[in-house]
Amino acid sequence: MEGEPTLRLRIFDLNCWAIRYLSKRRQERVRLIGDKLRQEGFDLVLLQEVWSEQDYSDLKVKLAGCYPFSHYFRSGVIGSGLCVFSRFPILDTLLYQYSLNGYPYMLQHGDWFCGKSVGLVVMKISGIIFNVYVTHLHAEYCRDKDAYLPHRLVQAWELAQFIRHTSKAADVVLLGGDLNMHPEDVGIRLLRGWTGLRDAFAEAMRFEGCKNGCTLVPDNCFTDKSEMLPFPLGIRIDYILYKAISSFTVKCEELKTTTGPAPGMAIPFSDHEAVMATLHIQRQGQPAGATLGTADLALADVVTEARTEVGVGLRAAQRQRYSWGRMAVLALLLLLLQAAAALGTLAGLGAEQPFPKLSFCLLAFLSLAILVVATGLHIFHTMEVKMLHGTEDQMWMALRALQERPSEG
Amino acid sequence: MEGEPTLRLRIFDLNCWAIRYLSKRRQERVRLIGDKLRQEGFDLVLLQEVWSEQDYSDLKVKLAGCYPFSHYFRSGVIGSGLCVFSRFPILDTLLYQYSLNGYPYMLQHGDWFCGKSVGLVVMKISGIIFNVYVTHLHAEYCRDKDAYLPHRLVQAWELAQFIRHTSKAADVVLLGGDLNMHPEDVGIRLLRGWTGLRDAFAEAMRFEGCKNGCTLVPDNCFTDKSEMLPFPLGIRIDYILYKAISSFTVKCEELKTTTGPAPGMAIPFSDHEAVMATLHIQRQGQPAGATLGTADLALADVVTEARTEVGVGLRAAQRQRYSWGRMAVLALLLLLLQAAAALGTLAGLGAEQPFPKLSFCLLAFLSLAILVVATGLHIFHTMEVKMLHGTEDQMWMALRALQERPSEG
Repeated sequence: MEGEPTLRLRIFDLNCWAIRYLSKRRQERVRLIGDKLRQEGFDLVLLQEVWSEQDYSDLKVKLAGCYPFSHYFRSGVIGSGLCVFSRFPILDTLLYQYSLNGYPYMLQHGDWFCGKSVGLVVMKISGIIFNVYVTHLHAEYCRDKDAYLPHRLVQAWELAQFIRHTSKAADVVLLGGDLNMHPEDVGIRLLRGWTGLRDAFAEAMRFEGCKNGCTLVPDNCFTDKSEMLPFPLGIRIDYILYKAISSFTVKCEELKTTTGPAPGMAIPFSDHEAVMATLHIQRQGQPAGATLGTADLALADVVTEARTEVGVGLRAAQRQRYSWGRMAVLALLLLLLQAAAALGTLAGLGAEQPFPKLSFCLLAFLSLAILVVATGLHIFHTMEVKMLHGTEDQMWMALRALQERPSEG
Repeated sequence: MEGEPTLRLRIFDLNCWAIRYLSKRRQERVRLIGDKLRQEGFDLVLLQEVWSEQDYSDLKVKLAGCYPFSHYFRSGVIGSGLCVFSRFPILDTLLYQYSLNGYPYMLQHGDWFCGKSVGLVVMKISGIIFNVYVTHLHAEYCRDKDAYLPHRLVQAWELAQFIRHTSKAADVVLLGGDLNMHPEDVGIRLLRGWTGLRDAFAEAMRFEGCKNGCTLVPDNCFTDKSEMLPFPLGIRIDYILYKAISSFTVKCEELKTTTGPAPGMAIPFSDHEAVMATLHIQRQGQPAGATLGTADLALADVVTEARTEVGVGLRAAQRQRYSWGRMAVLALLLLLLQAAAALGTLAGLGAEQPFPKLSFCLLAFLSLAILVVATGLHIFHTMEVKMLHGTEDQMWMALRALQERPSEG
């Protein structure tokens, strides 16, 4: 314990639910969040769902004094919603946009338009290199019949792979965000197993906040009560995860969540509760990265489970691709038939005009519209098939590597 | 020189031009490529434009003996076209899809549908960790008025950032591919300056092949002669780049290009010439990675130049977004007007039916079609604006870091 000094790092993570025109009392809440951040003086702030760049700019101006460094990640139609505020200089950034993120035609579930991504921020604090990741995965709209599970699993896999490949020169890895997965879900197990990241809630020496560390709770006045019915205590989907890579140890001294409105305030910061962790980072003689080797068998099971789910998604996507392709071909045939009929009439082959003009035109437009839409959807599902297939392949390669490891060493 | 043994690595890189139904004599050429690879027994083969998974599978079967390890990168509608064959085991892979890649409505330039990406393959050869990257950037269709320059620059920047962030644990970095940039272009200078990668052609101790290392030459029977008119000698757009990161040195002993059809064959392998490099890798006492620090000022100039071009693209994208948005609003207004007129007629407000039914319907369909298309394009250009803006930001951060470096250290 003595000798090397300890670095104490206070981290704040929140899904801000700041959707322009849609989120309730957005501007008021963004102001409250800014006040809280200024008051508490965290070292590092990881925010999600800051969809409006104006909100980010307002926060940036307000927080310039205590968080002189910040970054907003841009992607997709609406944005990634991800941003970082920091007391320490940001040396470098990188954005990785997930290859799958729902469907553009599911307008009521706007995820596709958000360009869901993982943002990486590299920092050096007291000589220690931190790779800080912030992300927000695809939402779960129906737990019993979760059509987006394969997409979320692809995202969890890409997140894990991105972290593994980019963090090799880092001393400490931190990940904060709304992962939209319950703690025991296969995606979380995959992410933790494949990266060796540890869950601040599970590791914390002290905890204070909502029961079981839940971050989506029925008591919050902004949550959808009907969605929370199966979970009377709430659910935990917002996480702070960490690991030390080189000769450092990280311990979570304290984890807190907000519990609805802060004292003296009328409303909560968001429909999610914030997660706040206090980490202790210390240099140690021996590397602490032996998490992976010991649990290879369990990890292989998780990867297999995830791969099965991705396979289910792959077959569904293949069916969709096939049926939209067939629809496009049928629409094209109908159009060609109509064109032939029209040409026939023009050439005077038919004695009289066989159809009323209006219905003929309407039918032509309808087939054209179906052709365009079905072709677009066929193309979209082709991309989906490619990405699911690619992920299945990568997971297979990972499994092979896991199985070969004992015989090699 | 003595002491540590030298690793000799032979690398083959080729844009295969294997587009199903479109490329001339595709199957014959893929067979020839397979023969050549089997005959020559390279250590590492980096291929682009292998669009058909069937072609990849055929090659894989054919090359199973001499290249037991391979990987095909899947992305986009058609695929990434990227694949790797190797004599040595592939330990891990990662795909990064570029955020910008042309326009879906430029059907004659099919780049958007290809999901242009950079693929990473991690290998360990004789105890040396290799990060091997293979990529294919957006094509240049008109050099004088290159509408895709901002997109290609974003890709070059993302490629450089991806390499920097993922290669920190590697001993040697290799990049092969069709970069679609001439050696003196700003994108190449940006990539080389920002990553420290060296050009095998420029560094080679021996060279054999097309003059100036050109890989797109008028003598090749598959190249478009009219496009080559301004470049009678051809152009060099296919590269093998490399650098040693830790205490290794890499030297290019020999670089070769093919020169049209190989002896005894009637046709060339592709419309591009293949690039073949023989590298020498040796362990050394001192790290050889001092390329960056020495040329900071020149690098800042390159980043500034690239950022200016990205800015030009950003303003063009903003104009496009605005005008498609305006078009969508106008179409919506027209539709509403028609709806009002139709309702008025139904309610018996107008004495008689004021317009012929057919024209009325046609107009409604036309406005609807314009509304849908214009909204789609508005959304697309919004994404484009986000990504160009994000890259401009990242480049600004890089410039700041470059300017601050001398004062720090």
